Amino acid sequence: MTTLPTSEKLSFMMDLYSAAASANFFADTKQDETVCWFDLSFRKLPELGGFCITAGLRQVADILENLHFEEEELRELKNRGCPESFLDYLRHFHFCCDIWAVPEGTPVFPGEPVLKVRGPAVQAQMIETILMQTINHQSLIATKANRIVRAAQGRRVVEFGARRAQGTTAALSGARAAYIGGCSATTCAAGALMHGIPTFGTMTHNYIQMFPNEYEAFTAYAKAFPDQCVLLIDTYSTLRSGLPNAIRVFNEVLLPMGKRPCGVRIDSGDLAYLSKKVRRELNEAGFPDCDIIASNSLDEHIIREMIQHGARVDTFMVGEKLITSNEAPVFPGVYKLTAIEKDGEILPIIRLAENVEKITTPCPKLLWRLFDMETGKAIADLMSTQDEDLSNCESYLLFDPDYTWKRKEVRNFVARQLLTPFFKDGKCIYKFPALKDTRFYCAQQVDSLWEEVLRFEYPHNYYVDLSQKLWDIKNNLIRKIRNGGGES
Amino acid sequence: MTTLPTSEKLSFMMDLYSAAASANFFADTKQDETVCWFDLSFRKLPELGGFCITAGLRQVADILENLHFEEEELRELKNRGCPESFLDYLRHFHFCCDIWAVPEGTPVFPGEPVLKVRGPAVQAQMIETILMQTINHQSLIATKANRIVRAAQGRRVVEFGARRAQGTTAALSGARAAYIGGCSATTCAAGALMHGIPTFGTMTHNYIQMFPNEYEAFTAYAKAFPDQCVLLIDTYSTLRSGLPNAIRVFNEVLLPMGKRPCGVRIDSGDLAYLSKKVRRELNEAGFPDCDIIASNSLDEHIIREMIQHGARVDTFMVGEKLITSNEAPVFPGVYKLTAIEKDGEILPIIRLAENVEKITTPCPKLLWRLFDMETGKAIADLMSTQDEDLSNCESYLLFDPDYTWKRKEVRNFVARQLLTPFFKDGKCIYKFPALKDTRFYCAQQVDSLWEEVLRFEYPHNYYVDLSQKLWDIKNNLIRKIRNGGGES
Repeated sequence: MTTLPTSEKLSFMMDLYSAAASANFFADTKQDETVCWFDLSFRKLPELGGFCITAGLRQVADILENLHFEEEELRELKNRGCPESFLDYLRHFHFCCDIWAVPEGTPVFPGEPVLKVRGPAVQAQMIETILMQTINHQSLIATKANRIVRAAQGRRVVEFGARRAQGTTAALSGARAAYIGGCSATTCAAGALMHGIPTFGTMTHNYIQMFPNEYEAFTAYAKAFPDQCVLLIDTYSTLRSGLPNAIRVFNEVLLPMGKRPCGVRIDSGDLAYLSKKVRRELNEAGFPDCDIIASNSLDEHIIREMIQHGARVDTFMVGEKLITSNEAPVFPGVYKLTAIEKDGEILPIIRLAENVEKITTPCPKLLWRLFDMETGKAIADLMSTQDEDLSNCESYLLFDPDYTWKRKEVRNFVARQLLTPFFKDGKCIYKFPALKDTRFYCAQQVDSLWEEVLRFEYPHNYYVDLSQKLWDIKNNLIRKIRNGGGES
Repeated sequence: MTTLPTSEKLSFMMDLYSAAASANFFADTKQDETVCWFDLSFRKLPELGGFCITAGLRQVADILENLHFEEEELRELKNRGCPESFLDYLRHFHFCCDIWAVPEGTPVFPGEPVLKVRGPAVQAQMIETILMQTINHQSLIATKANRIVRAAQGRRVVEFGARRAQGTTAALSGARAAYIGGCSATTCAAGALMHGIPTFGTMTHNYIQMFPNEYEAFTAYAKAFPDQCVLLIDTYSTLRSGLPNAIRVFNEVLLPMGKRPCGVRIDSGDLAYLSKKVRRELNEAGFPDCDIIASNSLDEHIIREMIQHGARVDTFMVGEKLITSNEAPVFPGVYKLTAIEKDGEILPIIRLAENVEKITTPCPKLLWRLFDMETGKAIADLMSTQDEDLSNCESYLLFDPDYTWKRKEVRNFVARQLLTPFFKDGKCIYKFPALKDTRFYCAQQVDSLWEEVLRFEYPHNYYVDLSQKLWDIKNNLIRKIRNGGGES
């Protein structure tokens, strides 16, 4: 028996109440005919800045295209009281939902549908947990990686967290999401191979300590890897031992082989100070092309600080604080019912809550991003009903959905739809770009945001507005429910 | 092509520098004969209190017993410059390390070896990343779960985090670790089935909203699951709508079927206040046996506060803050060389560092826990060399390894070894207890700690001492290296 997860097991990655609810819908024929619309969106993310980067669609597609249930899983559901007819339905399960998704690498904002799902209640409910888990995780890491990469201002960032990741998927899918967010490479061999991500590696302290001394360790490594020679120089003393030994080995081993050194890595001490000293000595020794690589519990804050203090670092290796998004390790995605469709008619659904932030926006939606034609910058996002079309709009009156007197007429813009067809009748119809293209797309889209939105601390709130029609539906529903005494 | 991880891929879960180092040892015949000793231990964990709970051995065993390399992985290593002879070695890989481990569910302290590995340099180095990843993750979650369970003071805690977990393994292995730490059940169907953990489930807001009203939703659910009827009562208004509807359905649906309700769940609002009101009304309605279940971003701090304010909650469902250990999402385990063995002789290795906390303790060790014979409480832990035996000791003089004038003679104790044979010649020789027995063992071992160590804030530092012999070896090595100018 293996106790490790395999992709075959993921159909059953559901909270039991989803299974129970699905069983119940199935049992109740009236409900089984019901077609439901769901939005996957997220609430505020203060610690992560002004926006998030979506990621995880590739894995969602893999999981949904392989949905099926095994006998032991059906037995488990039977023990939970699910009727035989429902088990039989799962035994011959045929996924048939339609899904629209915002492409991976897109900056998105609170309240916006990242995924829109349409399907029979029994199915749309059942995939809740696995959708949320996958999108929440990868979006969390892509967002954090993008912050760190922006802090590095053009220097390379290498993802280096496998050892401290929260399990295997966290390391593998995390390496992928970090690459989408802008990392240049990963040190994780399995993640690199699985997702086609460039790799980067140096040596360990343990390796050096297995040799009688640092010089012999460096010599052995340089001989073995003359083309990718990055030496770790802080095991004993960076300036008194590591750097002189490295320069000696570059001269004695690499140069005679006709090779140049790739870099030296510093993993402790005052990285800004050491990097400047090391840079000068490397230059003086004739190795201005030798990179300086820094690691040691880095994150965007430390990297910004280091650069501000003139650190001469070419590559930042970022581990635990990237792969766990340690300051905000939870991506607060939610999956909410927005409408029920009966005989072709769409009935919008809203969830009121005592906490105003938890009130949902009803209706299946279109999500528009308005770009200024002059600057190419994103002006605002707009959610509309599905029958509204902004693509040929000359001017549009935006207004704040809370403070409706805040109004702004925009002209000379291009409105682009962000939700793209993803699944049709249960089959993936989306053509995934190569991962490096997704990474490039991400960088481009982030560039289209105003600097004020990109700020690390207290960023400007980007406009996410509702169309007048959607606003009316939402507010009429709220009024109706409040007057009706608490239920729709 | 699937882009999801499978257990077959995990052999390659290594940082590239581990692979490179291994290749290098292999290439250098002198180094290949070298047998190395490593310790996996962890550094301070302030946010997580005075101790940690180890977990993850079952998955480590699965991975190590299945170590093998696929052709595409070997190609990747070849591209990285690894020589053909090394690839051939991997192609016919035969794992042969010896490993000792502290059993899962044991409280452990900073600096203690949780795993001790002995094997050829090439192999012991290669498994670094996957060992750390697995033990770091599950120990993190077991430790956090144990804090939450202790905060709940005997009330049930259900793990409820799959949707916010950092990927699939985080959810599945996280459910397992949370159970070891003391949770009573998980809502994650796949995790429960994979690891044999009890399940618990209720209903969702989405489910309720698919019905014309709350009453109809409750009725349908109670009819479908009369034996496990837990109703979610906060969708519209807990006191004005949810609770009256629940009581009505208990009376109209469950009682006529001869069934009793299992519980009501509150997921928003002031949980302490609401739980008291709901308790009173349920009692008055004749349902004193109906449990109250609370959820909504709970953690150990909120639970303690709620209990202090008289909350009448029977079961806490804890999601994102448990499954990500959100306050401290990184378990700082390290894997350090402690000795090199040549021709049967063990040469201790130490790593000095500018940061005193990062200095390692050399030598393969035994780890002893001394229990007071009268009270059964743990007095102190002691690390010794492998040839020391405390099992028949009448009295022992403990001393603080930093402040050596702090001394204490202990008598009337039992010394138990914590490191247990785990792998011998590359095969698992450890007989895993049933998971529920590991959970029980964990609770027992935590009970053996003094209250001062269990404290949530500023716990007492439990004594982790070195034997005189080990202390002498360590300090002689430090002196020798400092005098020798920075290198051993």
